[in-house]
Amino acid sequence: MSRVAIIGSASWGTALGIALARKGTHVKLWTRTGEEANKLNKEKENTTFLPDFHFPFRLWATSSVEEAIEGAAAVILAVPAQSVRQNIQLIGNYLADSVPIVSASKGLELDTNKRMSQVIAEEIAPHLQPNICVLSGPSIAQEAAMESHSAVVIAANNIAVAEKVQQVMSQSCFCTFTTTDVIGVELGGALKNVIALGVGIAEGLGYGDNAKAAFITYGLAEITSLGVAMGANPLTFTGLACLGDIIVTCFSPSSRNRDVGIKLAKGHALEDILSSLPHIPEGIATTIAARQLARRMGANMPATERIYRVLYEGLDPKIAATELIEYYADKSYHMSESKLVPHLASGG
Amino acid sequence: MSRVAIIGSASWGTALGIALARKGTHVKLWTRTGEEANKLNKEKENTTFLPDFHFPFRLWATSSVEEAIEGAAAVILAVPAQSVRQNIQLIGNYLADSVPIVSASKGLELDTNKRMSQVIAEEIAPHLQPNICVLSGPSIAQEAAMESHSAVVIAANNIAVAEKVQQVMSQSCFCTFTTTDVIGVELGGALKNVIALGVGIAEGLGYGDNAKAAFITYGLAEITSLGVAMGANPLTFTGLACLGDIIVTCFSPSSRNRDVGIKLAKGHALEDILSSLPHIPEGIATTIAARQLARRMGANMPATERIYRVLYEGLDPKIAATELIEYYADKSYHMSESKLVPHLASGG
Repeated sequence: MSRVAIIGSASWGTALGIALARKGTHVKLWTRTGEEANKLNKEKENTTFLPDFHFPFRLWATSSVEEAIEGAAAVILAVPAQSVRQNIQLIGNYLADSVPIVSASKGLELDTNKRMSQVIAEEIAPHLQPNICVLSGPSIAQEAAMESHSAVVIAANNIAVAEKVQQVMSQSCFCTFTTTDVIGVELGGALKNVIALGVGIAEGLGYGDNAKAAFITYGLAEITSLGVAMGANPLTFTGLACLGDIIVTCFSPSSRNRDVGIKLAKGHALEDILSSLPHIPEGIATTIAARQLARRMGANMPATERIYRVLYEGLDPKIAATELIEYYADKSYHMSESKLVPHLASGG
Repeated sequence: MSRVAIIGSASWGTALGIALARKGTHVKLWTRTGEEANKLNKEKENTTFLPDFHFPFRLWATSSVEEAIEGAAAVILAVPAQSVRQNIQLIGNYLADSVPIVSASKGLELDTNKRMSQVIAEEIAPHLQPNICVLSGPSIAQEAAMESHSAVVIAANNIAVAEKVQQVMSQSCFCTFTTTDVIGVELGGALKNVIALGVGIAEGLGYGDNAKAAFITYGLAEITSLGVAMGANPLTFTGLACLGDIIVTCFSPSSRNRDVGIKLAKGHALEDILSSLPHIPEGIATTIAARQLARRMGANMPATERIYRVLYEGLDPKIAATELIEYYADKSYHMSESKLVPHLASGG
């Protein structure tokens, strides 16, 4: 059976490890310290980030990069978006020539506004860059770990690389589909967290389901507009990597980004909300990057702009929601859906 | 102020009437019998279909078609899809030359598989046909009636007709956007009820949120495939009329189609479920039409096919779900998302 290395032992990395090991793959889960690795191997469970899921015997933790990566058919990065750069720096020298490097992190890098695959490409040797691919989609870690049915996409510029990963990862309860739209998949997975923050705010303010549905629809549309401006296929945003992931956010009570939105709407300060969480949800940084990208690309993102102001400029969530409704209401007296959402007119 | 006639006094017709009358429009709500009209006018409330919403003074019920339609700036049909034909036959002779006829019914006609605007066109004089338009989107009646924020689309072949209706209907808490993709809007509004049945089945069987998100994503994709085969713009399905409406179905506990799916999954017989409901949810008939259209157009609709068999051929919902998962899992070992969902490749 094949071997896979997973860099990152938080919930998603652990869940992927459990899912792959159950399938029969030998998985090495890399941890920062030897103590962490020992603890995981001894307890056969990640009690911190994914409690109650017993490790299959083919899943083994190690703090040695060399040991983790040796002989791996794929190296999966499942670390927070803001630490992808430092992690790829750590492992870059150990990467073998034709082994896919799979980014399973959703977000944009602060300051550079770069996608994860771009960050990885900058930190590895040029001849390794074609090995980069991206895994994204609606994926609550617990469900993937418990063999509940999940489906994700794997994107690579070179479809053969994505197909290699598909061969390694696909199983009856974890479907993977390939695509070459790396930009669309990465932007979809990152920007959906901004929408999740907004859905949370709407939820926390007590808006109805009609309003939430309209918000999500036009939120998806503004994400898509930015994506199109950056070279993505608009229809990628209707696939698993964006729409699918947004729907999970709507359904699932376990979305951390949505939770932050709900708490903001209830009047909690961002600082207090974040200090109570083990990780900072990806949407918090992604909103900054999304807004900067929107400005640079000339994309109109009325929801993202207001979510940014709620997070970083103290805008009252109630006023933000009212402003956004007025923005749309004003247009609703005279505008076509395709003018409101420019890519609707150009696509299809 | 303008006048509007609403044909149909169930929940959606009543809610639209309340919303318009609140805005200042004079609304005549047409009922089948004089007793019904008297009851509504006396109680100032539709206790049967939309209890607890007081009628504004500009909303008035009448059983006279002539009185309802006289001087109306728009005639809105909000009756069950299967009775649109007989209703338009009743009112056809009273329609004035340049007054928009707005279909607010979601569904496809049984036997003919026709969209509501096609049914209407067949029953009115040719010179009136350009007046036909369609209103659709995420619209829980109660929320529209209570001035919670809602947004919908209005579609007409001739954009000027849609804009006329937009002028009459739009208000700060009821946004309307226009489009010329009548086919897309009607198919989206009709077919989303098939997806709602499937979401209900998944819910009732206890599937996780990852699985439901994947189901909805690919359900939307198969609807879109049929729409594209029939001449719609694929991106219309990402707008309010389809995606927005599907999201309401996911969020809201009040979706009747989803409820039917949940009960089917719990082992109840379709007959028993339907006999306990005041109306037959639109998805029950639409599934038959959707399947026939898919076969005629050569569209691949694996979920619709299985939902049909659950409804009409006694297929066990558990087996239907397993079959559908196997269908996708089988493809997930070797397939790109764009091959799985052909319009993903052609659009954008």
